[in-house]
Amino acid sequence: MRQIRLGMIGGGEGALIGNVHRIAARLDDRFSLDAGVFSSDPDRSNAFASTLGLRGYGSVDAFINGETARDDGVEAVSIVTPNHLHADAAVKCLDAGLHVICDKPLSATAKQAARIAQAVENSSAQFFLTHNYTGYPMVRLARDMVARGELGALRLITVNYVQGWLANPIETEGHKQAEWRTDPVQSGAGAIGDIGTHAYNLACFVTGQDAQTLSAELNTFVQGRAVDDNAFVNLRFVSGMRGSIWASQVAIGSKNDLSLKLVGDRAAIDWEQENPNELRFSKIDEPTQIIARGQMGSDKWSRTPPGHPEGFIEAFANLYGDVADCLQSGQINHSVPGIADGLVGMSFIQACQISHEKDGQWTPLA
Amino acid sequence: MRQIRLGMIGGGEGALIGNVHRIAARLDDRFSLDAGVFSSDPDRSNAFASTLGLRGYGSVDAFINGETARDDGVEAVSIVTPNHLHADAAVKCLDAGLHVICDKPLSATAKQAARIAQAVENSSAQFFLTHNYTGYPMVRLARDMVARGELGALRLITVNYVQGWLANPIETEGHKQAEWRTDPVQSGAGAIGDIGTHAYNLACFVTGQDAQTLSAELNTFVQGRAVDDNAFVNLRFVSGMRGSIWASQVAIGSKNDLSLKLVGDRAAIDWEQENPNELRFSKIDEPTQIIARGQMGSDKWSRTPPGHPEGFIEAFANLYGDVADCLQSGQINHSVPGIADGLVGMSFIQACQISHEKDGQWTPLA
Amino acid sequence: MRQIRLGMIGGGEGALIGNVHRIAARLDDRFSLDAGVFSSDPDRSNAFASTLGLRGYGSVDAFINGETARDDGVEAVSIVTPNHLHADAAVKCLDAGLHVICDKPLSATAKQAARIAQAVENSSAQFFLTHNYTGYPMVRLARDMVARGELGALRLITVNYVQGWLANPIETEGHKQAEWRTDPVQSGAGAIGDIGTHAYNLACFVTGQDAQTLSAELNTFVQGRAVDDNAFVNLRFVSGMRGSIWASQVAIGSKNDLSLKLVGDRAAIDWEQENPNELRFSKIDEPTQIIARGQMGSDKWSRTPPGHPEGFIEAFANLYGDVADCLQSGQINHSVPGIADGLVGMSFIQACQISHEKDGQWTPLA
Amino acid sequence: MRQIRLGMIGGGEGALIGNVHRIAARLDDRFSLDAGVFSSDPDRSNAFASTLGLRGYGSVDAFINGETARDDGVEAVSIVTPNHLHADAAVKCLDAGLHVICDKPLSATAKQAARIAQAVENSSAQFFLTHNYTGYPMVRLARDMVARGELGALRLITVNYVQGWLANPIETEGHKQAEWRTDPVQSGAGAIGDIGTHAYNLACFVTGQDAQTLSAELNTFVQGRAVDDNAFVNLRFVSGMRGSIWASQVAIGSKNDLSLKLVGDRAAIDWEQENPNELRFSKIDEPTQIIARGQMGSDKWSRTPPGHPEGFIEAFANLYGDVADCLQSGQINHSVPGIADGLVGMSFIQACQISHEKDGQWTPLA
Repeated sequence: MRQIRLGMIGGGEGALIGNVHRIAARLDDRFSLDAGVFSSDPDRSNAFASTLGLRGYGSVDAFINGETARDDGVEAVSIVTPNHLHADAAVKCLDAGLHVICDKPLSATAKQAARIAQAVENSSAQFFLTHNYTGYPMVRLARDMVARGELGALRLITVNYVQGWLANPIETEGHKQAEWRTDPVQSGAGAIGDIGTHAYNLACFVTGQDAQTLSAELNTFVQGRAVDDNAFVNLRFVSGMRGSIWASQVAIGSKNDLSLKLVGDRAAIDWEQENPNELRFSKIDEPTQIIARGQMGSDKWSRTPPGHPEGFIEAFANLYGDVADCLQSGQINHSVPGIADGLVGMSFIQACQISHEKDGQWTPLA
Repeated sequence: MRQIRLGMIGGGEGALIGNVHRIAARLDDRFSLDAGVFSSDPDRSNAFASTLGLRGYGSVDAFINGETARDDGVEAVSIVTPNHLHADAAVKCLDAGLHVICDKPLSATAKQAARIAQAVENSSAQFFLTHNYTGYPMVRLARDMVARGELGALRLITVNYVQGWLANPIETEGHKQAEWRTDPVQSGAGAIGDIGTHAYNLACFVTGQDAQTLSAELNTFVQGRAVDDNAFVNLRFVSGMRGSIWASQVAIGSKNDLSLKLVGDRAAIDWEQENPNELRFSKIDEPTQIIARGQMGSDKWSRTPPGHPEGFIEAFANLYGDVADCLQSGQINHSVPGIADGLVGMSFIQACQISHEKDGQWTPLA
Repeated sequence: MRQIRLGMIGGGEGALIGNVHRIAARLDDRFSLDAGVFSSDPDRSNAFASTLGLRGYGSVDAFINGETARDDGVEAVSIVTPNHLHADAAVKCLDAGLHVICDKPLSATAKQAARIAQAVENSSAQFFLTHNYTGYPMVRLARDMVARGELGALRLITVNYVQGWLANPIETEGHKQAEWRTDPVQSGAGAIGDIGTHAYNLACFVTGQDAQTLSAELNTFVQGRAVDDNAFVNLRFVSGMRGSIWASQVAIGSKNDLSLKLVGDRAAIDWEQENPNELRFSKIDEPTQIIARGQMGSDKWSRTPPGHPEGFIEAFANLYGDVADCLQSGQINHSVPGIADGLVGMSFIQACQISHEKDGQWTPLA
Repeated sequence: MRQIRLGMIGGGEGALIGNVHRIAARLDDRFSLDAGVFSSDPDRSNAFASTLGLRGYGSVDAFINGETARDDGVEAVSIVTPNHLHADAAVKCLDAGLHVICDKPLSATAKQAARIAQAVENSSAQFFLTHNYTGYPMVRLARDMVARGELGALRLITVNYVQGWLANPIETEGHKQAEWRTDPVQSGAGAIGDIGTHAYNLACFVTGQDAQTLSAELNTFVQGRAVDDNAFVNLRFVSGMRGSIWASQVAIGSKNDLSLKLVGDRAAIDWEQENPNELRFSKIDEPTQIIARGQMGSDKWSRTPPGHPEGFIEAFANLYGDVADCLQSGQINHSVPGIADGLVGMSFIQACQISHEKDGQWTPLA
């Protein structure tokens, strides 16, 4: 199968998520990473690109000019910059006809988000948002089980996304990842944007429902921090389903503890990101079943048999696989997170911030 | 050591919690159960009492008259009736100088609670409330670690108490336990009273703090049910600590899933009631430690060495042991739940109900 | 129901297992502990007895003389001495017509065991051996599932009993429990007797089969220790089933880690003593089921609903409940461990020791 | 960094392990897979090669002739055929100066193994054996902790490798993976070769010790099967350490349940392949620590932070990374499994088979 020629904006030396995107894109051999903008300093960008064997550029404009001028220029671009730079890069790529694979959240501000949405509408190119947790096989199985009615009418969803890495003010100690994530200009929000949007996206993905209103309590526990580092959010859905999200970055001992519990009137499911290869399924009054990755049809999103653990990177690669399917078929697949999901995520952040300012008042999502 | 002569009101044939109280009282051989009111029908009460080898009575009055007239009459009484009957029994016992060990919550209404409080004030007898989860050794160790400052300044507490046994309207199908618990007159509240008060009590017990205000979202998922069967509650403490409680009785697959996570600025702890013999302790940037029951001083609340699991009944018996200590020393031990804790629990229920009526408005606890 | 009058030999101040027997006997209120020999020093025995409110004796003979002379003398006796003292006490009690509840293993030597067996045969009294792990509800459910054929033809059983408390030579540092257990005269064997017999008994109990031959590798890792502190044993059964037992007392970090895996040609089960309230059941090519205590009929051996953990003491009390049933009905229940199981356990120890001396040669069980 | 040009022999359409090798080689971008022999039918081989965008060949000879004739021919070859074909392919590649990355076990017979060993000795090319479980970060951390003396003197190692996929005779139902693995000519051994060698390798890798003698009990539970499908093996090491291995392919419910417990006289460690991102570390009389992948220096074998699970493929890729290091440096790294480990594995299989024939007699490893 022909590989899709991929570029990258952001993700220079030492960046965590850039490297994850590169591995994920490569895992199933459906993309070739050919070029990138890895720094606003052309020399540094080139130097890093050359260690990867890629064409390097010092700006988005140079990248687009260079690549669109080539017969073998990139067709799609992964944008893995801090949030406030997504819009500029995405709009330019989309305007140039390049497909965009954008890290989440969509942007730092509603205005930036709107610019991207407009560009998507005007472009023939496709747009994807890497809500990577939707790539886990057992999350997809959960979604399918819900859609098949195996849980009955949904009553409750709780999604907790609990980390501890920001328990201390490491953003003041030269920690790059922490710096931009706690700078409101670059990030637009704290825990609620960085991980809360993942939690909310997961809730929507698995249930097939968007919340109507929410009530949010945002906290900042680390002194001097300009964004929230903890959030309790309650959700109301039109269907009558109720939900809650807890997002925290100060919970010492927790690493990347994203978990989901979904309760219907006939059955319930539980899933934990740190133990992703199983899905617990409980029918009323029956023993809980541990569905292993590979069982019950989940092998279609897997590379190895049950008992050979797959993880974060494989899930991320599943999303890249979906992107490749969409690009090669030219079809939009609405179960792959895209611009609509990005806007929903932004409305979630905004509603949280508004509700919080109003002391938890129930607030509609835009 | 001399045994304390104990009576019981409630807990007749087939009652779950009455039997638990009886076993717990007996476990460490510090009480002899001698008499009880097991039914308002004297014949049934006598019949059940005689199977236990006890003196049976058909009413609280008869019980008090009978027992206080004997030289070897009971000295203390366990009250394990539905909530709305606590007050009448407790007041009469206290007025008669009998010590009271009362199941939680304190009562079905604030008015009933006030009557009990008044009676406690007027009586020379002691009053205890069986918030039995405070009897678990690892919960007590957690409290002590907090008090010693091992977690640093407290930031967050989450307590979830999740059950699934009321997912269907079993109260309409002759299920006795469900019937009175879902009747607002008998119970005063649904999940929030039956298990939410345990969760809140645990939060207070371990942290040594009471919440100042709360915001509650109560739900009733089962059609026709007259009380809440799910609740999301957020808590604010004067210290700046924030908390959340999730209490549910419709979460299919969950049995008695009470769990606690407490986060300070130096360390955090995790505990789960269904796996009660270990406490997870995470210092910042260090591997999480699994403290086994019996380690770190927790042996003083244990009967067996590590690896020999103790459970619900042993924890309940620890509370009865505390009661025996108080009664035999004549000293009040404020770490044993008593009338103050009962009133706090009632104010928690009331604040939840008020906040819920005001669509989640932050509401002070009385 | 009338209580059975119980005596105790052994289990004086500070003894672990004596206290466990006392609690277990009391838990369901079917026994009254009335008398005991708690020391060979009459004064110490009396002193300890009086703290328990019991009649104390300084010797087995005095105990038997005293008790049999009373109208309300004890009917049954729990023997919880070191192994080498079982025979003398048991024989005297049996000869006096007192039922015996004896701790395991049966004795320190085959000769002692034979004396007990002879006394049982000659006595009208019943004899029970406290292989207490058979009292766990999920172990009993496992046995019943096997008997009903739910696993198909049995292929494999592995039972590991792994502890770490003897990793250091604590027997030389005044640790009473360690002292007699590592003295070959008092114990008769090390890990293989103290815990290996439990493991082997569990294998037999759940499968309904006894091994035909075994091959054993015994080790002593702690210098100067006169008994084994680790054993690997392989088992062959007539049915073609194969098994293995690992018993260790030097596995640092392990507390009382007894676990069982049983594999048939249709399904398999897993159980862990430190997490005793669930049984894992795996049918071929289906998700593993977590059967909770209380489900699938296991409530009949339980006192509380699922999610309210029961543990070591409750399991022990189940065995005392069986004993009470046997004594009150006068019927022998062969599923309650008795003299036959005791002899089987002794033959297991002996075969292990013989096989070990022959460098692992397959050795028949007597 | 320049990519190493890689070829593959075996691993055609539908083969599990071939695909794992391809992903693992690609993950860190250090290899380019350029050519392969995917079938002995040149058309099928070419067809499959072309779907991967590679040069296809119909025989090892054609492959070697074709590739060595090219300036850009492959430099290294992954051999992922059934065991009995390893020797022919490996010898030819080594003789042609191509580095070999060979799946385990080394071969189906000792004679084949000797041929490979001879070819390695005569060749300037390097030889690697994919004992991929040594690639897990926490396994490597365990090895380093042992080497640093953190466990003290080693006493015990148990490695269990338990699967259930061969519980039924699926080799007679067209299951390709099962067919060759249960054919003694193609595999050379059953469970003991397929997974027992992994278990033994892991024991040696982590402890730094080889066993001196072993005692093995091999079983075949599935009727008509010509190889063992279960094995219990005990191990003696010169140091005094003792060990046991249980390898099974008929344990229904078990997927790929490889676990390791290593006990020293100061501390012990536990690791489970199905939960590979943590290592349990227990010092004597201290709470067990859960070391997360990424902590205690294990980040050097990781691509993502703690809490972002890595799995089987990432571990496999770590081994390919080691191979790339060795090839690019020209240095042999003895901690990367090679020909010596392959011969040790063959001697393990052979000793198991000899011991089994002699009814478990302790047998030296060659």
